[in-house]
Amino acid sequence: MNINELDTPSLIADLDVLERNISSMAKHCNEIGIPLRVHTKTHKVPEIAKLQVDAGSQGITCQKLGEAEVMVDAGIEDILIPYNIVGIHKLKRLTNLVNRAKIIVAVDSEETASGISQQAIVDGVVIPIVIELDTGSRRCGVESPLAAHYLAQKIEKMPGLDIQGVMIYPSNVNAKPFITETVDLLRKDGIPVNIISGGGTGSETASKEIGCTETRSGSYVYEGMTRIGNSEMLSPERCVLRVLVTVVSTSSPDRIIIDGGQKTFTSYPPTPYGHIIEHPDAKIYGMSVEHGHVDVSGCTHEFRVGERLSVIPLHQGMTSNLHDELVGVRGHIVETKWQIAGRGKVK
Amino acid sequence: MNINELDTPSLIADLDVLERNISSMAKHCNEIGIPLRVHTKTHKVPEIAKLQVDAGSQGITCQKLGEAEVMVDAGIEDILIPYNIVGIHKLKRLTNLVNRAKIIVAVDSEETASGISQQAIVDGVVIPIVIELDTGSRRCGVESPLAAHYLAQKIEKMPGLDIQGVMIYPSNVNAKPFITETVDLLRKDGIPVNIISGGGTGSETASKEIGCTETRSGSYVYEGMTRIGNSEMLSPERCVLRVLVTVVSTSSPDRIIIDGGQKTFTSYPPTPYGHIIEHPDAKIYGMSVEHGHVDVSGCTHEFRVGERLSVIPLHQGMTSNLHDELVGVRGHIVETKWQIAGRGKVK
Repeated sequence: MNINELDTPSLIADLDVLERNISSMAKHCNEIGIPLRVHTKTHKVPEIAKLQVDAGSQGITCQKLGEAEVMVDAGIEDILIPYNIVGIHKLKRLTNLVNRAKIIVAVDSEETASGISQQAIVDGVVIPIVIELDTGSRRCGVESPLAAHYLAQKIEKMPGLDIQGVMIYPSNVNAKPFITETVDLLRKDGIPVNIISGGGTGSETASKEIGCTETRSGSYVYEGMTRIGNSEMLSPERCVLRVLVTVVSTSSPDRIIIDGGQKTFTSYPPTPYGHIIEHPDAKIYGMSVEHGHVDVSGCTHEFRVGERLSVIPLHQGMTSNLHDELVGVRGHIVETKWQIAGRGKVK
Repeated sequence: MNINELDTPSLIADLDVLERNISSMAKHCNEIGIPLRVHTKTHKVPEIAKLQVDAGSQGITCQKLGEAEVMVDAGIEDILIPYNIVGIHKLKRLTNLVNRAKIIVAVDSEETASGISQQAIVDGVVIPIVIELDTGSRRCGVESPLAAHYLAQKIEKMPGLDIQGVMIYPSNVNAKPFITETVDLLRKDGIPVNIISGGGTGSETASKEIGCTETRSGSYVYEGMTRIGNSEMLSPERCVLRVLVTVVSTSSPDRIIIDGGQKTFTSYPPTPYGHIIEHPDAKIYGMSVEHGHVDVSGCTHEFRVGERLSVIPLHQGMTSNLHDELVGVRGHIVETKWQIAGRGKVK
C-alpha cells in the first residue's frame, strides 16, 4: 500500500528513522556504560517497546499502571512504574500485575507505601519498591536525604514490600550530593540500594556520572520538540512522526486550511505547531479544534484543495495520545499499522 | 454506586446541571424564535445528543464525518457537517451515510463540491449542500457575496448536489450585509436559500437578527471556559464536567500533586487549568503529562495522600476528547456511564 492511499489525518512513523534513533541511543548508553530502561510514554506502542528491548533496553518504564498493563499484555517482562500508586482499584491491579511480570514501583510517602503493603499482604505478593527523590522536577519525590532515610526505614518494616533503592528525576550533576548522601544513609543502616534509577532523554551521561544503575530515556525515540527544544530543528532526518493531512480550503490567497487541528496535534499553542516537510515556508500559525490554519504568504507554490502535506508535530507524546493507530512507513510504502494500545490510559 | 467508589482520574458529568443547561438553551431559542441545531463537538456522546434532540433541537452538527457516523449509528437522523469533505475515503463514507440519514454538507470551493458531486453520481445519491461564508472566523468559507454566488452557480450545475443555502460562522450582527447580499444574489438567480445556518454559543440572538433559519450552539451544554471566558466564573452550579482526581504526593508543604496532568486535562496551558471545587484556594499552577501541580500555600486545609478532589476542567471539549468514558452522577450517586463514542474521530 502506498502512503497516498491513506485517509487523513493519519499519524505515521518513518521506520528507518525510528530504528536509527533506537539503535543510536542503545549504542550511546552502551558506550558510556549505563544500562538503559526506556520510557514508553512517548509512543505507547507495545511493538516499539519490544524493538527497544530487543536493541538492549533492560526493561521499560510506564508512567501509569494502565500503560504497564498494556505492555505486560504484549509480553514485556520488566517494568518500572515511577508513580505513586494510590487507591484500592489500582492497588488490586498492581498486585495482579506483579503476579505476571517484574514490576518495580516508586513511592514518596509512608501513606503510599502503606497502601501498597496492605494490598500486597492481602494478595500474598512482594513488591519491589524504590523511593523517589525530588532532584529538581518539583513534582513528586522526597526533598532531602533525611526524608528519604526516614521513609526507607518505615518501608523496611512494612510487610509485602522489598525496598530496592531510589529513583530520581531528572538526572543532573547537581543532584550528586543528594544521591550520595541518601545512599550512604541507607547503606549504613543496612537498607539495600540495588537500584539508583536516573531519567531524562539527554541525561544519560549525567546518570552515569552521578552513580545511577540505569537511565530512563523516552522522547529520544521520536526526537520531537520536547527533546530538541527548538522548532527550527524539526527535520525529517531526525524526527520520526508525521501527521499526514489534506488541504481542505484555499478561500484566501494567503491562507490554507488543513484537516487537522488541536484534536489531531494537541492544543499546546506555541507556533508553528508543526513543521510542514514539503513546504517549510508554509507556517501553521493557529489551530482550532479540527482545522489547522496555515500562512502561505511566503510560498511561491500554489496550494490546491485535496493536496496532501506531511507535518512533523511539535508535541510527539501528546500527539500520539490523540490517535488510535500509528502507521509505520518506509519511504512511500506502508509497512505496518500499530495500535497505540497505551493511548488514553489515564488510570 | 457512590462516586467515591470510582477510580481516578474519572471524567464525570453532573446530570442535574447538564439537564438544566440543555433545557435552558432550548427555552432561550424557543423564546427568541430561532430553531436550534446543537453542535455535539463539545461532548461527543450520542446519549447527550439525544437529550438535546428530545429537548427540541431540530438536528445536530458534527464537525467531522467520523463523529457523524457515530451519531447516525446511535439513531440521530438529521446532521449538518460544516466541513469540506475531501478525498475518496471520506467521499465514499459520506455517500454511505447519506443513505442512512439526512446529511447536509458545507463546502467553500468548486474542488470540494466537484468531488462530492462525482461520488454522488457513482453511488446514486443526492446530497444537500450549503455554502460556507467566512463571517469572521478567518478559517474556511468564501470571502464575499460574489464568490458565494459564483460557487452557487457552479454547484447548481453539478449533478448529485442539491444546494440548500448558506452557512456562517460565527453569527454576529456585522455579518448581516454579507448574508443579505449573498441571499439576494442567489435568490435573484433562482438558487434556493432554504437554510441560513448560523453558529456559536451565545450568538443565538445574533443568528435571529441577521435572518438565520437555525443556530448552532455547542459549548453551552457543559458551560466551560470557551463559553464563560473567565476562569474565575467556573462554578459547580453552571459547569457540568468534573475530573475526579486523587492526591498522590504531599512531599512539599506548599504543593500537592494530583493524578491528572496534560493527558487528562489537555495541554492548553493558561493557568489555573481548572477549578478545584472542594478547595477554591488551591491553585493548579502547572501540569506535566501525568501530574497536576497544585499550589496549596493559600489553604488552611491539610491535604493527605489518597484524598479526592473534583476539578472543573478549563477546556471541556478537548478534555472530553481525551477520555473514553463519561460517568453521569446525580449528587454523589453514579447514575450512568456513557461511552464517549465520538472521541478521537479525527477523520
